[in-house]
Amino acid sequence: LQSKLPHVGTTIFSTMSQLAAQHGAINLSQGFPDFDCPPALVELVSQAMRAGHNQYAPGIGISALREKISQKTQELNGHFAHPDTEITVTSGATEALFAAIAAVVQPGDEVLVLEPCYDSYVPAIELSGGVPVFVPLRFPDYSVDWQQVEDKLTEKTRLLIVNSPHNPSGAVWQQEDLAELTRLSQKYPFLILSDEVYEHMVFDGQPHRSILTVPALAQRAFVVSSFGKTYHTTGWKVGYCIAPAPLTVEFRKVHQYLTFSTATPFQHALAAYLEHQEHYLTLPQFYQQKRDLFASLLQPSKFELLPCAGTYFQLARYRHISDQPDVAFSQWLTKEAGVAVIPVSVFYHDGQDHGVIRFCFAKKEETLRAAAERLCQL
Amino acid sequence: LQSKLPHVGTTIFSTMSQLAAQHGAINLSQGFPDFDCPPALVELVSQAMRAGHNQYAPGIGISALREKISQKTQELNGHFAHPDTEITVTSGATEALFAAIAAVVQPGDEVLVLEPCYDSYVPAIELSGGVPVFVPLRFPDYSVDWQQVEDKLTEKTRLLIVNSPHNPSGAVWQQEDLAELTRLSQKYPFLILSDEVYEHMVFDGQPHRSILTVPALAQRAFVVSSFGKTYHTTGWKVGYCIAPAPLTVEFRKVHQYLTFSTATPFQHALAAYLEHQEHYLTLPQFYQQKRDLFASLLQPSKFELLPCAGTYFQLARYRHISDQPDVAFSQWLTKEAGVAVIPVSVFYHDGQDHGVIRFCFAKKEETLRAAAERLCQL
Ligand SMILES: CSCCC(=O)C(=O)O
Ligand SMILES: CSCCC(=O)C(=O)O
Repeated sequence: LQSKLPHVGTTIFSTMSQLAAQHGAINLSQGFPDFDCPPALVELVSQAMRAGHNQYAPGIGISALREKISQKTQELNGHFAHPDTEITVTSGATEALFAAIAAVVQPGDEVLVLEPCYDSYVPAIELSGGVPVFVPLRFPDYSVDWQQVEDKLTEKTRLLIVNSPHNPSGAVWQQEDLAELTRLSQKYPFLILSDEVYEHMVFDGQPHRSILTVPALAQRAFVVSSFGKTYHTTGWKVGYCIAPAPLTVEFRKVHQYLTFSTATPFQHALAAYLEHQEHYLTLPQFYQQKRDLFASLLQPSKFELLPCAGTYFQLARYRHISDQPDVAFSQWLTKEAGVAVIPVSVFYHDGQDHGVIRFCFAKKEETLRAAAERLCQL
Repeated sequence: LQSKLPHVGTTIFSTMSQLAAQHGAINLSQGFPDFDCPPALVELVSQAMRAGHNQYAPGIGISALREKISQKTQELNGHFAHPDTEITVTSGATEALFAAIAAVVQPGDEVLVLEPCYDSYVPAIELSGGVPVFVPLRFPDYSVDWQQVEDKLTEKTRLLIVNSPHNPSGAVWQQEDLAELTRLSQKYPFLILSDEVYEHMVFDGQPHRSILTVPALAQRAFVVSSFGKTYHTTGWKVGYCIAPAPLTVEFRKVHQYLTFSTATPFQHALAAYLEHQEHYLTLPQFYQQKRDLFASLLQPSKFELLPCAGTYFQLARYRHISDQPDVAFSQWLTKEAGVAVIPVSVFYHDGQDHGVIRFCFAKKEETLRAAAERLCQL
């Protein structure tokens, strides 16, 4: 059997979470909260199940949820997405990313990827026969070098994948990024896949600058988000994709054969819970406090924290502690120091290593304190 | 935008369920029960959520569930599948089918498909650049013509997709089918994808003849099943794939980027509920009674029922009622007679039409009676 993904092993998230469990390490690697979702949301799921919502949802998602997504999008980004023709509920953002790529990338098509990036993008491109074209983000601020993007754009560029707030770096786009992308979109016919799953985690009073806020971009973009990140329910696997009708038609063709539909009781519960706008409106403060707490706890350590403007991830340089490559250092940290983290080099196709690791701070205060105590001893 | 799936529209299941809803028709089209899952199973999901099982499960599925699947497979099929290396939990059987195909089908590979077949197979093959090679099942008994299969096998045949109990026909494999497939597998190096989601719906005392009962076949097969069908929870989207370790490695590479993981609370509930063997051991009687009831209710009608040895689907010829093509007849039946069904021609690549429609009888007695009353008036 000849592998179709010869360079792909087990995703770093599974690997590190497993290593953390094996060694009883505090798990700041894979991105998920160690606190629970709102109990009222759990109760709504139970109610939905008891009301008999246990059979297939419509493949595109239940209409109540699509309508709520449409309203929220309108309120937050000033963009109207039609619930029937432009919004599709998916089994997590990961499915949405895969479906969007599979829907439009043909063999030989070029897809521009800004690195470091979430590790599903490139295998999804490759499974569609696409050619990933890599543009590194600037180090150490992880901003986009638009000149480099422009240099790599060609008539064969089918898709450009963007991601703000950015995983793993925590960088967020500025107005200028939207302006530059708009300029390039006038010169080339590429489509856009915008991974905005951390949309409600932007700090220091900055807005989330969605692709949807710029009509010229929205009209050629798949915008992907996730309820898992926003509602502390990463294990429910409910995400969605917003795209103009012609793109949504192609997206749904793939989606209906990938998973067909997404868990029904969660959809009912989320549709009802989306009434509570305060949940997502207060999320920036909620996570900013965690960011600030974690940073202050690490102050006495030898780690050098990089700026974090969004997401629930904090990057740190560790060169004052070790000369090891980041993968080896992350393993060592997990096994010997009892704190699991993610090495950032795995998010580059060529494994380039800046001596940076990623912490997830979506954790209870006691977890962050316990981890920091260990980290400060190094 | 050039469509990657130019011949694909909205799946027939969405189309007919929507038409049924629009016209207030009794929905015997898409396959799902109109009765509920066991209340104890719902309670287990609620408990899992309240216990905090709301974050990512391991990508391959929680170990308790994989162990239970392994035990059940051993008991029922005499095949040991290692929970850690040979079993993967997926977001429904549809995801498992897609992942298996995407994992092994390379551009130009031939994939043998027995028609009529579930409508996700061919688009999944095409998205991987594979070439579907069609072999029709015999009409009207939908048995496999193994000579025709042999004639179509070549060195380029990467995969053969099989499905027993068979959707849409309700045909089930006999010992001879396993023997013939074993013989062919000794001559050609193809892999097997076996869709066994209706494994617990085989009637009249026949056993389910799983690919897993034949070691020579199991060693080159992906075997897909679904908790949705077995536990009346089609809306929970939990399925799984059993495959030997080297195939599972490739399967998981794709799965981890398709959906990454499957809803955590359902996995905990199903793992606990699988203790209750009587549920699936009594399922054949449960559905056989429904089959028999529905057949007896349709006795006075002009429909001519074809044999149904398994699944929760009943085929029927309608030529004594109408000369319309089956798609037109199904629409007419939904709109004018108030009973939604599935036309079987949509399960053939060339739309061949034998004047046959599919009823789903996974319905409450009152639903079947109400539908039959309408159908007997035609
Ligand atoms: C799907 S597991 C990974 C979660 C995540 O987004 C991350 O840790 O970056
Ligand atoms: C995924 S919706 C289709 C359900 C089903 O298996 C069928 O009706 O054939």
